[in-house]
This record gives sequence, structure tokens and C-alpha cells, in this order.
Amino acid sequence: MKRLIAGLSLLCLAACSAPLRGTGDLGLVVERADGRLQVVESTHSTRLATISGLGDLSHASLVYSRDERFAFIFGRDGGLTKVDLLEARIVKRVVQSGNSIGGAISQDGKLVAVANYTPGGVKVFDSDDLELVADIPAIGADGQRSKVVGLEDSTGNIFAFSLYESGEIWLLDMKDRKNPKVRKYPGIGKQPYDALVTEDGRYYLAGLFGEDGIAMLDLWNPDKGVTRILNHYGRGAEPLPVYKMPHLEGWAASGNLAFLPAIGRHEVLVVDMTTWKEVGRIAVAGQPVFAMLQPGGRRLWVNFALPDNGKVQVVDVPSLKVVKTLEPGKAILHMEFTPRGERVWLSARDSDQVTVWDTETLEQVAMLPAAKPSGIFFTARAHRIGL
Amino acid sequence: MKRLIAGLSLLCLAACSAPLRGTGDLGLVVERADGRLQVVESTHSTRLATISGLGDLSHASLVYSRDERFAFIFGRDGGLTKVDLLEARIVKRVVQSGNSIGGAISQDGKLVAVANYTPGGVKVFDSDDLELVADIPAIGADGQRSKVVGLEDSTGNIFAFSLYESGEIWLLDMKDRKNPKVRKYPGIGKQPYDALVTEDGRYYLAGLFGEDGIAMLDLWNPDKGVTRILNHYGRGAEPLPVYKMPHLEGWAASGNLAFLPAIGRHEVLVVDMTTWKEVGRIAVAGQPVFAMLQPGGRRLWVNFALPDNGKVQVVDVPSLKVVKTLEPGKAILHMEFTPRGERVWLSARDSDQVTVWDTETLEQVAMLPAAKPSGIFFTARAHRIGL
Repeated sequence: MKRLIAGLSLLCLAACSAPLRGTGDLGLVVERADGRLQVVESTHSTRLATISGLGDLSHASLVYSRDERFAFIFGRDGGLTKVDLLEARIVKRVVQSGNSIGGAISQDGKLVAVANYTPGGVKVFDSDDLELVADIPAIGADGQRSKVVGLEDSTGNIFAFSLYESGEIWLLDMKDRKNPKVRKYPGIGKQPYDALVTEDGRYYLAGLFGEDGIAMLDLWNPDKGVTRILNHYGRGAEPLPVYKMPHLEGWAASGNLAFLPAIGRHEVLVVDMTTWKEVGRIAVAGQPVFAMLQPGGRRLWVNFALPDNGKVQVVDVPSLKVVKTLEPGKAILHMEFTPRGERVWLSARDSDQVTVWDTETLEQVAMLPAAKPSGIFFTARAHRIGL
Repeated sequence: MKRLIAGLSLLCLAACSAPLRGTGDLGLVVERADGRLQVVESTHSTRLATISGLGDLSHASLVYSRDERFAFIFGRDGGLTKVDLLEARIVKRVVQSGNSIGGAISQDGKLVAVANYTPGGVKVFDSDDLELVADIPAIGADGQRSKVVGLEDSTGNIFAFSLYESGEIWLLDMKDRKNPKVRKYPGIGKQPYDALVTEDGRYYLAGLFGEDGIAMLDLWNPDKGVTRILNHYGRGAEPLPVYKMPHLEGWAASGNLAFLPAIGRHEVLVVDMTTWKEVGRIAVAGQPVFAMLQPGGRRLWVNFALPDNGKVQVVDVPSLKVVKTLEPGKAILHMEFTPRGERVWLSARDSDQVTVWDTETLEQVAMLPAAKPSGIFFTARAHRIGL
């Protein structure tokens, strides 16, 4: 009888051990060297749990399920791992390629697509059980297999991505999962290296590493083909050494202005999105990596490549001036805003810490120890297109 | 011993009864005649539970806590009720005035503000325990107490609202909750009746019922005072009968265009937000109430006042043409998109149903019975400014 009671109690403890709580203020911090995630919450700025066994997270990103309970982590080793934030555990893990660079979740949340380097292509999985739904080898017009970069979700369960070696943009329509349709745009330019979808879901923009300019596809008018914009954007006639490629997903828009990290130069470009012309440049402290707009739109936050990667600069958008330079630790790899922008979290890899800042006072309000932290991702991403 | 086991089991059942689940796909449907809420989820389009005892919900709205677990409901009877979506229960309820019209939650999620008609003013409560934090009577420059309308949250824990009778906009700064600061803008125009904050958090716009035009306050430059825009917007020299005032919170922006329900006319106005000038009009089937942009930006959805309130029209944004007229039931009071826009939920009060539509195919995909449904609110609202 005692055993029975103990059994019942254990059953209860097991079933009750994961706390009943909302998931809108949760997030994950990647501890890149240890293949581990921290589950954090942004209401009180605390760590709730850790999840180990994620494999090689040296260039990891992730997306969230539409209920904000589960995350899908894309690891450098080709691992795709589904984790449960509430129970702080791995639900399922598949090693689906030799080397992957990122992924996306479909508009309806039912499909997760992964961009692979080795072998080059896109694999699509059911978000429920991670069963393979589609396997799309990225064989370009050159007959060779390309690395896939810049994989983004669009509306209508369409994924957009770019082929690095062959210089193409492809649209993968997964509305009918048994009959994936691919539309190919070859000859878009040399070496697309990263891409983004604008916040309204309309434009897919791929940055070209091999030449100056950006390839743009209007997803509302896919028959019009790919056009070239910002022909001055790139490494220029006399390229500077580039210590780290900027992340295009950091692009942000305030009103009709977008902000774009220059490549190799100590500048952030200001672009008018109604004309796609450059309308200004902001001098900053180093080679920008992310230039991210704080929700609420008034301030832009910029971090940098070596040797300036211990700095973060805050830019006032109306005046386009740097208002403060922060030194939040060594090797600031990522910035993530709370959904309504009152706080920003900064990961300092070589200081083994994540710091939390008040975006109004620009004062540090919390610090969380973390082992070699890189990406920080809050669950509010679940509700956005093209992340 | 048996009793002990039974006790333990009951304990477990009680503690485990609320299911462990994410809250990112939850929502509430107001059953206005019965003072009741339905807890729904948008992944499978189902009802999960009901919560009764909310009082008079004949003109109800609500906001969400930043963790997307709790909602704060503003009732017509002055009731402010905090409900727990996971446990489907009322956490606390206070009747804080004789008649309230709506409210907002502060950027940091710690304060809930309520706009009151009777007595006219704003009361601010702690979102944790609903204890009163501030009581701001709306005594205008005319020395009289005004009704408060158009209460919206802004960044920095500032609330913006308008005084109907005295024609003023006030900013209530709650950064220091023990020392609320009020900044007043008198003489903004006659009878502001509703307002909105643009999605980037920059502009507070109050529609004027007593004259044509809209009063605009640039929240990034509050020293510049209130300006007047869209002087043609309003009832005009020869006003038509207005069967229902449009809701300004329905305003939506696609690129630099905003869409605005005309007052009394069968038109939606198209406004360029860089100049705040009208650039077009869309002929629609009736007097528009809400004109809401589908996430993804390509389509605008419009519902109508009597006698056309059984219709919903879908407008293609690039061409500004109506592409389809739906008839989803009698008395369509509200529309709510899933966060990434693949579905829209429509409440049909006089058909006692909520229907769910695929926004791409424009086909109905689900129907939920509901008693006299009005507002539908998904938890993704928690992550946005100015809702």
C-alpha cells in the first residue's frame, strides 16, 4: 500500500512537474559550445531550465511552433531537433543532412523546412513528428548541387531560398504537401549569401556576395521575375577585408526607411523602401553585423564584427545619430528585443553572460550567466512572417 | 488509507486538471448577451472552455498579459476582470466605474489602464492583483468632467487618450507609478470619438466626430503639439446618417498606405502615411465599420454597419479592387486574423456562430457555435504596441 501511495505521488509529481504557465514570455538562449539551450523568461529575466543534447550549435538558429510551446533548432551538424519549452526536453531529433544553415516554419505551422549545405538542398518535415515530407535537391542551371542559403517562409505555405553557387532564387510551394511545386529564377547574380522577407511578407531580398547589389523578388507578383536593387550595396570596387558577413535578417523598417549593415565598411545604410534607393549613411564604430530596429521604431541597435565586437551602438532614428555606445561584454553575437521593445537581451560569448538592458534608460537591469551564448530567440517570433 | 489515496488522487487531478499547453494559439470570443467568454484555440479551430460571470459585455474589449496566459476584460458596466485562459477561470474582478469603454496594458505589462465614461477618467491598476495604482479624473479645460475615449498604450509606459466633451488629448506617463505625470493638449477639435496608435508606435490619431478631420500627435516629438490631418475625413458638409461609427483601431498599413473606413459613406479611404494625404477611395458594399489588413499585407477585409452587416468584402491591395463578397452570417461584428494571417475568424452575432475562413482560398473551413458573439481576440495581441 505504501508503494502504491508512493507510486501515485510520483505519478502526480511527474505529471505536475512542468509548471502551468503561459508561453508568450519564454525564450531560448543557445549555448553554442555545449550543444545546450537555456529556457528563459523575459518577465522577470530569469533562467527556467536547460536542455542538453542538441549537437553542434556553432551556427544555430531556430523557429517556434504557432502555439509558442515547441521550438525547432537547426544545427550546424545537420541536426533538426524539436524541443518542448514547458517540459524542457527534446521531443525528437533527426540528423537530416551533413551541414545545415537554417530553416523556416510554414505559415500554417505544419511544416518545417531546413536549408542544407551538404548535400545542398531543402528538406521539409512535418512539424508534429518530424517525418520527412519533401526532399528538394538544389541542382542549379549549371547542373551542379548548390548550397542553400536564405531560406524564408512566405504566405500560402511557400518557402523562398537561394542557391549560392548557381546564383538562383527558388520558390517552393508546399500548399499540397504531396505535390511540392518549385519555381526557379536563375541568373539572379553571383553568390547570394543571405536573404530576408520584408515584414509585410511582400519582398524576398537576397544579398549578393560575388557582386554589388541585392536581388529582389516581389512575392505578390512572382511573374515579374527578379530585379536588381541597390547596385552600390556590396564590397565595392576596392573591397575591404570582411571580418564577418552581416546578417540580412537584421534588416528593419521604420516608416518607409530600412537600415542595412554595410559590407566591410563602418556604416549602416539607410534605404527608402518606396524607391529602394539609398538616402543616407550612419557612421558607426565598426563593421556592422546586425542592425536591428527596436519595436516602437525609434532606436536602431547595431553590433559589430572583430575587432569591435565588444561594442553595441544605439542610433536615434529621426536624427540618424549614435546616441550611446555600450560595452556589454566580450564578443556580442546577438541581440533580441522583448516583443514590445522595453528590454533588449545581448549575448556576450566570451564573457559567458547574457545581459538585459532597459531600452529607454539604456541601463543594464539584469545579467544571466550562460556558457558561450550566441543566439537569443523569444517565442513572439512564432507570430511573425519571414523570420 | 483508502481515503488518503483518494485524497492524493484528487490532489493530483486538481493540480493536473488544467492541461499543459502553449498559449500562443489561444483566444477569447465574447458572448456579449450572456457575460461569458469562450476560450478557443486557432490551431485546430476549436472551443476549449467557457468562463462565465463577466457582467455586461455589450461593448467589451480586452488586452492580454505579456506571457499570453491572462486577459483583462473591460466591460460596459465598469467591470475590470482578469481571467486565466489555462485554468478557464476568473482570477479577480473589480467594478471600477459605472461605465467603461476600453483599456490598454503598459509596455512592460505591469499596469492596466481603463477608459471610463462614468465618471469620466482613467483608472490604472496593477496587472498582478488589480489594486488601484492611479485615478485620473478627466477634468478638461472647460472645468467639466469628460468621457474618456481612444485609450491606447505607447512606449515607455505612457498611455494616450482623448476627452470627448472638452476635445483634448492627454498623455499619462506611468514610468514612476507613485508619481503619474499628465501632459494635456487642449483644443484638438470637437468630439474625438476613437483613436489609434500606428503600428510603429509613433503616431496617436484621434478621429473627430464633431468636425471633419483627424487630430494627430507625434509621440516621438510630443513638444510639437497636435496637428490636424485629413481635413476632408469626416461626415462632410452634408452628413449622411451614420448607422455605426467606424472603429479606428481597425486601421491598417501596407507599405506606406493606410486604409480608413469612411464615415457614413460606402467607401474605404486610402491614405499615404508619408504625406498623410488621401490617395484613393475604394467603393464597398456599405458603411464600413472595420477595415483590417490581413497579415502578409495583400488583402484588406471590410465589414459593415446595418443594413449591410451580413456581408464581408475582401479587397486586393495592389489593385484596390473588391475581389470577393462573403456572406458569413447575420450581423458580422468583428474579424480577427490568426497571427500570421492564414485564417480569419468572423463573429456573426445574429447567427450565433463564429466562422473560420482560409484567407487564400476564401473558403469557410470551420464553424463554432457561440451565443451572440461579438469581439474575437487572439493572444498574439500581447506582443503588439497600441492595441
